[in-house]
Amino acid sequence: MTPQAPPPAYRRLSVEERRSQLLEAALALFAHRPPEEVSLDDVAEQAGVSRPLVYRYFPGGKQQLYEAALRSAADELRLCFDEPRQGSPLARLARVLDRYLAFVDQHDTGFSALLRGGSVAETSRASAIVDGVRRDAAEHILRHLDADEPGPRLRMTVRMWIAAVEAASLIWLDEEKQPPAEELRDWLVEQFAAVLAVTARRDPQAEAVLRVLSADV
Amino acid sequence: MTPQAPPPAYRRLSVEERRSQLLEAALALFAHRPPEEVSLDDVAEQAGVSRPLVYRYFPGGKQQLYEAALRSAADELRLCFDEPRQGSPLARLARVLDRYLAFVDQHDTGFSALLRGGSVAETSRASAIVDGVRRDAAEHILRHLDADEPGPRLRMTVRMWIAAVEAASLIWLDEEKQPPAEELRDWLVEQFAAVLAVTARRDPQAEAVLRVLSADV
Repeated sequence: MTPQAPPPAYRRLSVEERRSQLLEAALALFAHRPPEEVSLDDVAEQAGVSRPLVYRYFPGGKQQLYEAALRSAADELRLCFDEPRQGSPLARLARVLDRYLAFVDQHDTGFSALLRGGSVAETSRASAIVDGVRRDAAEHILRHLDADEPGPRLRMTVRMWIAAVEAASLIWLDEEKQPPAEELRDWLVEQFAAVLAVTARRDPQAEAVLRVLSADV
Repeated sequence: MTPQAPPPAYRRLSVEERRSQLLEAALALFAHRPPEEVSLDDVAEQAGVSRPLVYRYFPGGKQQLYEAALRSAADELRLCFDEPRQGSPLARLARVLDRYLAFVDQHDTGFSALLRGGSVAETSRASAIVDGVRRDAAEHILRHLDADEPGPRLRMTVRMWIAAVEAASLIWLDEEKQPPAEELRDWLVEQFAAVLAVTARRDPQAEAVLRVLSADV
């Protein structure tokens, strides 16, 4: 029997595992620094791997790293939207907001940095990624409202509210996460109901949705 | 007496006049094409001037032209906010929105392009310009609401509403300017009152502002 080789000092990761390890390291750095100040070398150091390895995964440099991190954050964000069709739609909205605010809280400065971009961000591609998340969020909400073929006024109401939520989360991060997440969540849910009620004055479809929401409360 | 020289075929413009002529030409082009597709040569052609002249004014190329155009649009936008402190605050808000929507209508695709940036836009500087306009808009509104030292909840409400208005105008342009501007304006004003009422449930300052607004209606 030959003596066993000592186990390697590090676990060998698959390509996908390695990639997500590096992206996690990048996102952790983005949480404290704007994208243009994060170099591939920093990512190597953060992940505890060699520089050439990082360069092998992101031959396109900072720009590629930024976009990959943005895409990975976008995927994670989409997971927040998964909500069973149970209970009142406003309670569901509250649960989605809880997960969304936890995501914002966790990624912190990285959330603003990713959303606001920076000088490394080739905006048209990056903003297409962010716009994709916004569109998905709107679709999810409209589906939970049981609005078949939602008309332009109902769609616009939902998309405006999403823009307001996004603005709120950036301000929330700027203001040291005040008010507390639970209060912000309730406030946002109430705003949703309020703007829907305004739309309902001029849109029968929004009125029907509002009637269902009010019956649930 | 020596014979008079014939008048020049074109009027001699001051540096400032020439600059604004070129920026107007650029904005006109941005109204139909994304910034990355507008070259300095296009601007020369649009303004009916020589190419070297345009290069003299914008030696920094596309990027400089884009930022200058953004700054000029930002200045124009700020003019929309000028509103005398007369009549009810909501009526004032409606008049500001009328001017704002006329601006959006006039600049059309250029408005989205300027806001959304493009691959020529070095985002951090460009977004600082856009953020400056948003901040100014918020200050104007808070002043018209007679909110001395507005607290975080009132500020956040106003800034969230501004984000919603911005989203609404981009969607409005995408949807062939439907609903009509007057309806969109009324809808946005009513939303403002509605979200303020939601904030008033948890913020005495917002409640006081709301009381004044309601007394005026």
